[in-house]
Amino acid sequence: MLNEKLLEVLLHPADGEVAIVTQGIDGPHVINTWNSYVNITPDGRMLIPAGRMNKTEKNIEGNHLVKLTIGNREVQGLSYKGTGFLITGTAKFIKDGAEFNIMKTKFSWIRAVLEITIETSVQTL
Amino acid sequence: MLNEKLLEVLLHPADGEVAIVTQGIDGPHVINTWNSYVNITPDGRMLIPAGRMNKTEKNIEGNHLVKLTIGNREVQGLSYKGTGFLITGTAKFIKDGAEFNIMKTKFSWIRAVLEITIETSVQTL
Repeated sequence: MLNEKLLEVLLHPADGEVAIVTQGIDGPHVINTWNSYVNITPDGRMLIPAGRMNKTEKNIEGNHLVKLTIGNREVQGLSYKGTGFLITGTAKFIKDGAEFNIMKTKFSWIRAVLEITIETSVQTL
Repeated sequence: MLNEKLLEVLLHPADGEVAIVTQGIDGPHVINTWNSYVNITPDGRMLIPAGRMNKTEKNIEGNHLVKLTIGNREVQGLSYKGTGFLITGTAKFIKDGAEFNIMKTKFSWIRAVLEITIETSVQTL
């Protein structure tokens, strides 16, 4: 699910914004993180540091489906410079264990790790 | 509603991704555009070129509330370099008239203009 172009975006030195969308009972909710904050596990899950994300956590307790957009204006896309991905997946908050501890050493301010298991990843641009 | 920091993000030479979220009957929908594509009218509306955006258009026919996130890693935020905004508003697709024509001269590939009337704009970072 993680192709080379997406990794190129995530590893690009010109950092960009990731949008993370969940379904709330009062409508969709959207928060952001940075491309450089997204860690990829060997089996292709995304681990994202969570400082607040309280409403996102509440929403996924009701509906664990999430959508993410990730892009970078400096990476060559399908038809011009600038590419973007739409990722769908399922989310879970991790608050202890080995993966939480590794993330905590990288991001001391986290209260949890948002784990995304990717279902689909589409290059939109 | 359009403070100087948001304008700094929109006008920054290091372009970034905007996420535009709508509510569909099948869940939230998210698309992207670039900061540099967002035009601000003298009265503070956002005009965004629409090439496709067919599902976004369909969604706003049912529910015209939208959420946008806009940010830039290079612009000083509340506590470090990197800032972001969460904007809520109402959306409409414009397919003719003076504002459509002006946008068409700037973006020849558009089929419509997505007009956002801002309700709230919050600096989140």
